[in-house]
Amino acid sequence: MLRHTTVGIIGGGPAGLLLARLLHRAGIDSVVLESRSRAYVEQRQRAGILEQTTVDALRACGAGERMDTLGLVHDGIELRFDGRAHRIDFPSLTGGRSVLVYAQTEVVKDLIALQLDQGGPLLFEAEVHAVEGADTERPLIRYTHRGREQTLSCDYVVGCDGSHGVARDALPEPVRRTYQRSYPYSWLGILADAPPSYPELVYAHSPRGFALGSMRSPTVSRLYLQVPNGTDPADWPDERIWGELDARFALRADPDWRLRRGAITAKAVLPMRSHVTEPMRHGRLFLAGDAAHIVPPAGAKGLNLAASDVIILARAFIQLSETGTTELLDAYSDTCLRRVWRAEHFSCFMTTTLHTDPGHSPFEARLQLSQLARIADSRSASAELAENYTGPPLG
Amino acid sequence: MLRHTTVGIIGGGPAGLLLARLLHRAGIDSVVLESRSRAYVEQRQRAGILEQTTVDALRACGAGERMDTLGLVHDGIELRFDGRAHRIDFPSLTGGRSVLVYAQTEVVKDLIALQLDQGGPLLFEAEVHAVEGADTERPLIRYTHRGREQTLSCDYVVGCDGSHGVARDALPEPVRRTYQRSYPYSWLGILADAPPSYPELVYAHSPRGFALGSMRSPTVSRLYLQVPNGTDPADWPDERIWGELDARFALRADPDWRLRRGAITAKAVLPMRSHVTEPMRHGRLFLAGDAAHIVPPAGAKGLNLAASDVIILARAFIQLSETGTTELLDAYSDTCLRRVWRAEHFSCFMTTTLHTDPGHSPFEARLQLSQLARIADSRSASAELAENYTGPPLG
Repeated sequence: MLRHTTVGIIGGGPAGLLLARLLHRAGIDSVVLESRSRAYVEQRQRAGILEQTTVDALRACGAGERMDTLGLVHDGIELRFDGRAHRIDFPSLTGGRSVLVYAQTEVVKDLIALQLDQGGPLLFEAEVHAVEGADTERPLIRYTHRGREQTLSCDYVVGCDGSHGVARDALPEPVRRTYQRSYPYSWLGILADAPPSYPELVYAHSPRGFALGSMRSPTVSRLYLQVPNGTDPADWPDERIWGELDARFALRADPDWRLRRGAITAKAVLPMRSHVTEPMRHGRLFLAGDAAHIVPPAGAKGLNLAASDVIILARAFIQLSETGTTELLDAYSDTCLRRVWRAEHFSCFMTTTLHTDPGHSPFEARLQLSQLARIADSRSASAELAENYTGPPLG
Repeated sequence: MLRHTTVGIIGGGPAGLLLARLLHRAGIDSVVLESRSRAYVEQRQRAGILEQTTVDALRACGAGERMDTLGLVHDGIELRFDGRAHRIDFPSLTGGRSVLVYAQTEVVKDLIALQLDQGGPLLFEAEVHAVEGADTERPLIRYTHRGREQTLSCDYVVGCDGSHGVARDALPEPVRRTYQRSYPYSWLGILADAPPSYPELVYAHSPRGFALGSMRSPTVSRLYLQVPNGTDPADWPDERIWGELDARFALRADPDWRLRRGAITAKAVLPMRSHVTEPMRHGRLFLAGDAAHIVPPAGAKGLNLAASDVIILARAFIQLSETGTTELLDAYSDTCLRRVWRAEHFSCFMTTTLHTDPGHSPFEARLQLSQLARIADSRSASAELAENYTGPPLG
């Protein structure tokens, strides 16, 4: 039975698990409370693009082995619009940066195995009800585990429990500021047992809507179609999906080209939104990852932003542990929010630049094409995209 | 009495006059028909920033003397937001480009003097009613001059008669495509007999609205305030204008600083909009400048876009005259429209990045600040601004 820990971590997704690992390596004890089962957490489909900063942190905490074997280094992406293709070359535009394609589910599996093997407590199906006393010296986490109400007393609490979690509710209304935006479209995402049709991710803007060609491994494709909000996946039989993907990826120079097809093993509609809660710290409660901010997926920023939050936070706890000063902890919210707003802006930029907006005038639709043509034609415009996509160094 | 000319030019603003000059230097005859009086044309206040391409063309047609004496070379602009200032250095970001501050009214005076002295006919108060036979071999311009109805027969007609002109009406409805956007704010612009407070243009974003500090000469300031659409200048007594300008330019580091004041000699509210008419050519009729496209003023693109249109068109007429081929004439619309859409996008970007939008959510307001911070912090983002501001070379 748990009574006290230094850092109580709510949520066993990538943010919570990575934080626990980074703290463990520094000799700081923590407890991770995850409301779902291990099986559920290990199979839910999420992002798949890791920035260098995220890769470095996973390696640093011992979770690099499978990632370095199975991950696919990507040195660029392709943009398609107006029937033509343009590649954005990351290393030449950013001074050598690239990204790694490695699914979030795999990251989570690696971190769970490691933490259970050689970390602090990681409890599944531990449902947190409330954080109390965030602005006291000894905050409490109330949770239920194996049918029993429990209390964990902590020096610090970190909410990594996502956008529907309870940690954010512990920020009192008077200090909490919320910013959000919704989008007039969703993604229909599929997993298919088909080798990826393209060596790199393809972001396609077409009058029919946006499409994204991605992959999870050399044998599994991950593909997305822009669809109206409220779309029922049942309205999209497999044949319709493949046909629409072919149409949106079509190049004028090669009109007969078709995607490699395969059995569709998952099909889901994903809404998208932007959301930021400020501040990301209140007293001894810290928010990290989706608990504090949501980005639409087109910039591949969600997982990476969560990782950089907890890297910054781990550094702050290590400073406190080694020197007794709270300078980095006190700066945590401001430090993270600069990165967060940059990522929010970039994610919104990618989203609005690539999707067709049913509310757009013909003028705005032409501006989109002018923006895409500029990215294709100008080194500064493509460098601006590449720098944001590969992510700024943490400094 | 005029009967026939090679190129009939409707409109004696900078586009029409520059075209006439460029054609004259190449030995191609033209007639310019301007509906207003010379005095009116020479005093109307318009833009004041010339790109290198525009400067080069003015020099090439002999109109460089006063410009090179009185024009002020500007190597950058200043952005202000969030109480701080950031300079964008053009030459270091663009490989040596800069802009010249020289008022459009002065450009027009120079061109008129030159054309009357040594050019083809330039008629003032010649009101054009219609262009007929644009898709025939011999288009006609119907106009009234000195109370008499006249007809000018032309090999080609060029409409440089602005956004309210008649030339555009000669584009038949079935081929004409129109794109437009309005903005929920206007500019209150003043001219003041005061030395400029800043050595370069200052673009200020503040929660109170946008402000622009500019100049016409070392003794005349040109200043703008964002105001709601429909604002009556009478609601803005001088004292209110100066106070509001001081508030919007305020820097945290120097809160007591004030603008240099002087007698306000002109005060007007300027609406803003984006507009593009395509194609820019129909048969033997060509559109140039505001007759084909309008940009909001924040990117300083209107005059320069008009100049590049007619430079491209003059080259095409010269090719025809020298070689008998219409390759450049046939490409005119597409060649111009690539530049036009780039400028439309940039002008819209500058406008929406710098103004406060009454319809914006707090999220969108924060994205604006993130965009501005990015421009201040990133070389690629500031290079992207500087390249667009100084204008791409014509190639």
